[in-house]
Amino acid sequence: MNAMNFLNEISARYPRAVSFAAGRPTEDFFDLEDVHRHLRRFTGYLRTERGLSEQEVRRTLMQYGRTKGIIHELIAAHLAVDEGITADPDSVAVTNGCQEAMYLVLRALGRGPRDVVLAVSPTYVGFAGAARLCDLPVRPVHGGPRGVDLDDLARRLAEARAEGLRPRALYVIPDVANPTGVSMDLETRRALLAVAAEEDLLLLEDNPYGVFAGAGRIPSLKALDTDRRVVYLGSFAKTSVPGARVGYLVADQTVAGADGVAGLLADRLSVLKSMLSVNTSPLAQAVVGGCLLAHGLSLRAGNHRETALYDRNRRLMLQGLSDRFADRSDVSWNSPAGGFFLALTVPFDVDDALLEHSARAHGLLWTPMSYFYGGAGGRHQIRLSFSGLRPEEIGTGLDRLAALVRERGRRAADR
Amino acid sequence: MNAMNFLNEISARYPRAVSFAAGRPTEDFFDLEDVHRHLRRFTGYLRTERGLSEQEVRRTLMQYGRTKGIIHELIAAHLAVDEGITADPDSVAVTNGCQEAMYLVLRALGRGPRDVVLAVSPTYVGFAGAARLCDLPVRPVHGGPRGVDLDDLARRLAEARAEGLRPRALYVIPDVANPTGVSMDLETRRALLAVAAEEDLLLLEDNPYGVFAGAGRIPSLKALDTDRRVVYLGSFAKTSVPGARVGYLVADQTVAGADGVAGLLADRLSVLKSMLSVNTSPLAQAVVGGCLLAHGLSLRAGNHRETALYDRNRRLMLQGLSDRFADRSDVSWNSPAGGFFLALTVPFDVDDALLEHSARAHGLLWTPMSYFYGGAGGRHQIRLSFSGLRPEEIGTGLDRLAALVRERGRRAADR
Repeated sequence: MNAMNFLNEISARYPRAVSFAAGRPTEDFFDLEDVHRHLRRFTGYLRTERGLSEQEVRRTLMQYGRTKGIIHELIAAHLAVDEGITADPDSVAVTNGCQEAMYLVLRALGRGPRDVVLAVSPTYVGFAGAARLCDLPVRPVHGGPRGVDLDDLARRLAEARAEGLRPRALYVIPDVANPTGVSMDLETRRALLAVAAEEDLLLLEDNPYGVFAGAGRIPSLKALDTDRRVVYLGSFAKTSVPGARVGYLVADQTVAGADGVAGLLADRLSVLKSMLSVNTSPLAQAVVGGCLLAHGLSLRAGNHRETALYDRNRRLMLQGLSDRFADRSDVSWNSPAGGFFLALTVPFDVDDALLEHSARAHGLLWTPMSYFYGGAGGRHQIRLSFSGLRPEEIGTGLDRLAALVRERGRRAADR
Repeated sequence: MNAMNFLNEISARYPRAVSFAAGRPTEDFFDLEDVHRHLRRFTGYLRTERGLSEQEVRRTLMQYGRTKGIIHELIAAHLAVDEGITADPDSVAVTNGCQEAMYLVLRALGRGPRDVVLAVSPTYVGFAGAARLCDLPVRPVHGGPRGVDLDDLARRLAEARAEGLRPRALYVIPDVANPTGVSMDLETRRALLAVAAEEDLLLLEDNPYGVFAGAGRIPSLKALDTDRRVVYLGSFAKTSVPGARVGYLVADQTVAGADGVAGLLADRLSVLKSMLSVNTSPLAQAVVGGCLLAHGLSLRAGNHRETALYDRNRRLMLQGLSDRFADRSDVSWNSPAGGFFLALTVPFDVDDALLEHSARAHGLLWTPMSYFYGGAGGRHQIRLSFSGLRPEEIGTGLDRLAALVRERGRRAADR
């Protein structure tokens, strides 16, 4: 998190730099009138499809409300349409962004000093943050080109258990992951589910970018999960209105409570949520609900312009990298099927000092891959984000990147 | 929290019962068009008073945003207008309801097994919930008729320290508190601030009902705080749109961070918030911001209809109790200066069984005061909430309450 603060500070100090750092969704299609339209559409749905009176509609949006949220049925329907996931609406809890969903699950999992969680490395920094709030240690599992290295997973599980620890869950982003853009293939997903069953391990599937995962989209882990091994962590921050800050979780596991009575994990998490934030703003939920309704509950349909933009940008990035670095065997990058990010490997150390130099001397921002490793790792990698850029910025940015790489190459040669 | 679940369950099972249990704000003046108007007013303010471009306005409301929020300046101005509090906007952090503000402060305070917090007893159940999430023990301090018993506070501090513990803070609701309706007098407030300075104790001042504290409103602790001893916890759930779920904290204390560098407590809490929920929905904040702007930043002005309703209800309650119980020396109640609640003392045990009987046999709901005591206490007390009722419901409810009390009296006499 301190690293991220450094990045934010650098970004603030060099506002005119081209930024491959920000992983935010495009703002090109933002329209404030959409917020009003979504609100009206959702209240219309409450009146006509749910049969609520005017007083009940006002109460639903403006009063304190249900801890697990008011758009759980729409979310369950959306998951069926877009993800092939069959979710009982009662197993859905709406949260203050996906970040809160992570916190709630981790807070429930970390019950004692022996509990640890695993996370594919490199990974989303917010996961480490939520785990830190819960005093829950995170142990890395090598990600690699298939999204998770199952041999390393087996090793890490054995290691942890040999130390007397209880590995409670593995956190994964199977689709065009942050920070690498890597997707897990179908075979790996099935194998991972088998390992989870064998090892009695919960999988925490975070899926903020699935809508943008490309044409040959592979089913999510939750869609393949016949054994309730997967807690699904959902976000609308990239696919609806980010400013609503609405996320959710699907937790259909049966667990024993403190009172010994078995219940739905979603309901246990809901009790924790009542102590954390009471409930998620029904107004914010209504904006997302209206957005879902506007597109027949499909965020793929609702994001066709955004998808085209991200696809264009990704192609420009890949072509632009190829144009500038094809003759250099010491510079390489991966080719994600979709998403917001790709990983660039360079023949020199990538650290905060280089980032600062890049911002000052080249007017260029990016994210050191090391930020996404809990411990050591990613020393020669850069995360390049392309979700928020215009074509001309991509060209300029890659020119500056090429200049930085040339300069570093010379320095290495000078030594 | 289990007790509260029982209450919710009983409420759901007896939906036609008159309820003195729900402490929600009145819905009489809810208007969905206000939500749209508030949003438009806030965006107008961003354009004209803050000089933002259309693109910046869209970004401010619809994109990820500042962790500490976007209405901090309006909140600081509102605190000056309504509360006589001078707050640096940088010391304000906007949160997902006041509940999240509590969590963040408690999470920062509870750093080790020796840390404990104190809370005036009886108190708001949500405080105990937030403390539980932080694994932070809460020790009660007797509240009594002046809002806090300073002798008991001294005893509890000495006790805790003798046990090797570090009392980090005292949680108080100085104005027409939940659950008792008691307000702290000015002399007690000044004395409490002196104790806080002497004992090096932080005061966590929660003030959800201050706007409704009555004509002779006494300055808040934060308004009297010359020594940065008070963290102010703010809510808009009773004074603006509850469904926005927007709260805030004012934390102007200087603290040393993990890196040894001194910084504003609000900024440390902001780092925790970034790990918990990234930022509070700017759309929800905009609704509250627009509501503040609609009333010249005064929620007293913005709540004149609500204040009149709560005042009317309180008078009806006090008169109605007097009409029904004036001849009974074994039934008594306090006379709060404002707020949503009062405390009724009865000559029999008040527990879940009585609540269930009251709901089933009398069609009457209320809250056992014992719910608001961490350990034992409140066995003969009932919290009566009157914020959401119509005059005829108050009359009917008090008739049913009188029948319940008569019946219990007979049972006691029969034994």
